[in-house]
Amino acid sequence: MHISSTTLTVQTHGKGLYPFTKAVQDWVSKQNARNGLLTAFIQHTSCSVVIQENADPDVVLDLRDFFEQLVPEKESWYRHTTEGMDDMTSHIRSALTQTSLSIPFLSGRLALGTWQGLYVFEHRAAAHERRVVLQLIGE
Amino acid sequence: MHISSTTLTVQTHGKGLYPFTKAVQDWVSKQNARNGLLTAFIQHTSCSVVIQENADPDVVLDLRDFFEQLVPEKESWYRHTTEGMDDMTSHIRSALTQTSLSIPFLSGRLALGTWQGLYVFEHRAAAHERRVVLQLIGE
Amino acid sequence: MHISSTTLTVQTHGKGLYPFTKAVQDWVSKQNARNGLLTAFIQHTSCSVVIQENADPDVVLDLRDFFEQLVPEKESWYRHTTEGMDDMTSHIRSALTQTSLSIPFLSGRLALGTWQGLYVFEHRAAAHERRVVLQLIGE
Repeated sequence: MHISSTTLTVQTHGKGLYPFTKAVQDWVSKQNARNGLLTAFIQHTSCSVVIQENADPDVVLDLRDFFEQLVPEKESWYRHTTEGMDDMTSHIRSALTQTSLSIPFLSGRLALGTWQGLYVFEHRAAAHERRVVLQLIGE
Repeated sequence: MHISSTTLTVQTHGKGLYPFTKAVQDWVSKQNARNGLLTAFIQHTSCSVVIQENADPDVVLDLRDFFEQLVPEKESWYRHTTEGMDDMTSHIRSALTQTSLSIPFLSGRLALGTWQGLYVFEHRAAAHERRVVLQLIGE
Repeated sequence: MHISSTTLTVQTHGKGLYPFTKAVQDWVSKQNARNGLLTAFIQHTSCSVVIQENADPDVVLDLRDFFEQLVPEKESWYRHTTEGMDDMTSHIRSALTQTSLSIPFLSGRLALGTWQGLYVFEHRAAAHERRVVLQLIGE
């Protein structure tokens, strides 16, 4: 049995999706395993992780804009406002997406479909350094 | 340690939820493990996987219809339109649900609650063959 | 390889988020593993699990209230109404959040960020006993 882990840092600069597929593929290719499970866990509650289409860059722009409308900043009833008008919306958008991704690792490769890419979904307006813990359990 | 995997094909024919619990149970019962973790990973970004009530068939119809309203097709601001009006909505609905399911496997059985079933949630209008990678890590 | 599991019971009393981080930390600290993966799987379809901010208690109140608006009970088109007006909404809110959480376990500790806590998100109005299966796979 083989377990290994590392922490990626993803630099964000405003709301939107930031690809990190290649960093994950590079890391898993260096681990001593052929088959197993890759977990990508983001250690924050105002951003999230999603798997989305990696072909047309318009997809992630539309996704960002949909969430901007679905979870509007200008709601007078929010209680949690001390960290800025984009903070409570970030927690909600995080709950609506994912804190972790689980991806089978087969014959030395992540079992992603052709059009699937991994993204950090930044929900805050300011730039942030985001930490994603990667863990591979396999053999 | 035991790791095994397979790929299920689920045939869909329009928007809605398609059960695949039995196929998963049949497969895991043939693996050489008593305890472990089952991952079901769908290799697409215009459909998703969810665990939902398996008793009243109205639940999955209401769920489908809720998403049809929550993520409407007739939005003039979508940029990604070349693959049809139901494609961008499919990516959004996928982000709002799950790309993978993680289910503990205990004493030879999936630890599902009484009313829980596994579904492919098809977000596109046309028929599709969808691939779900199953992986069991256990002993 | 080490696999262990247990079932937590979380008592809820109405819609909202109920923390269970400490119960998980207490349990994992007693397992015979230093590194691995913790899965928390809720065996129901009318409540869910999320990772959310554990600092300002207003966050989980706002989150609860956002879902109350996003998935309204007073929709005349719901088919599934026999279990009460808060049952179909619960299934939808469950699909929009998570049935399981996957958290790496590193050097004897869950790899949670500083502000991350685990919550059962109860979507039903009445009190319930909710079961969360915990499983640790590690070494």
